[in-house]
Formats: sequence, structure tokens, C-alpha cells
Amino acid sequence: MINPIFEIIGLSAAFLTTSAFVPQVYKIYKEKNADGISLTMYIILLIGVILWLIYGVLIGSLSIIVANGITALLQLSIILFKLKNS
Amino acid sequence: MINPIFEIIGLSAAFLTTSAFVPQVYKIYKEKNADGISLTMYIILLIGVILWLIYGVLIGSLSIIVANGITALLQLSIILFKLKNS
Repeated sequence: MINPIFEIIGLSAAFLTTSAFVPQVYKIYKEKNADGISLTMYIILLIGVILWLIYGVLIGSLSIIVANGITALLQLSIILFKLKNS
Repeated sequence: MINPIFEIIGLSAAFLTTSAFVPQVYKIYKEKNADGISLTMYIILLIGVILWLIYGVLIGSLSIIVANGITALLQLSIILFKLKNS
């Protein structure tokens, strides 16, 4: 169990770095266009994020689990959109 | 001290998610153009990454320190390039 004060710092970090990703998802859905997105890059990123998620569970870090859980869902939605529309 | 096996998973995650960022830096330096980059977004991301770095030090996670240390340097180089060329 990690010190709750540390988790507040970690969750603030998670909020900032994860929310930076939201405008990209919004832009793709609004313009219904994912041409500017590299599928290979997103798949590599998704594998990395899933490994972070496993790491977060192993070391018992709520911040890592929350940040990478949300990021994985956002990336998966971009990948599925890209596959459906190309 | 986190189990070294866990750190191998974490460092693999760090390698995948950090290296995905390198082509962006390369593209900006090659084209000497950072017009497509949102300065506000990068500054918010940098603050988030610095908080992750602090969190990594507090919980003693080598993977988080390495990943966010490298990412912070890459982001800082993009921000400085953007400020110098706009």
C-alpha cells in the first residue's frame, strides 16, 4: 500500500498526462478522420500502456493503474476507429 | 526496493511508450518546424511528467523515474525549439 499523499501526486500526474490525450480522440471523432494517425505507433503505444498497467498492478500503484487504464481505452478507441475507417 | 522482475516489465513499458515520442522530436528538428505543436499542451504534459518523476522518486520506482526523466528531456527540447522559432 502506497502512502495516500504520494498517490495524490501520482493521480495529479495521471490527470495531466492522460487528459492531454483527449483532444486527439475528440478531433478524430469530430472530423471522422484518422488519416494523420500512425496505426503502427498506436499499437506499439498500446502494448507499452498494457505493460505499464501490469506493472502498476504488480507494485500496487493506484496512480499507474488509473492513468494507464484510461489511456489504454482511449488508444483502443482510436485504433478501432482507424481500422473501421481505412 | 521493487522486485527486479517487476522492473523488467516496467522498463519494457517505459521503452515502448517513450520511444513512440522520438519520431515527433526527429520530425520537428528535421523540418525545423513546430507549427503543428500546441505549446500549451506540451507545457501541461511537462508539468504532468515532472509530477510523475516526483511520484517515481517517492515510491522508489526505477521504471517511472527512467521513463519520465527521458520524456521530460524530450518535451523540454520541443518546448525550447518552439519558443526559439516562433
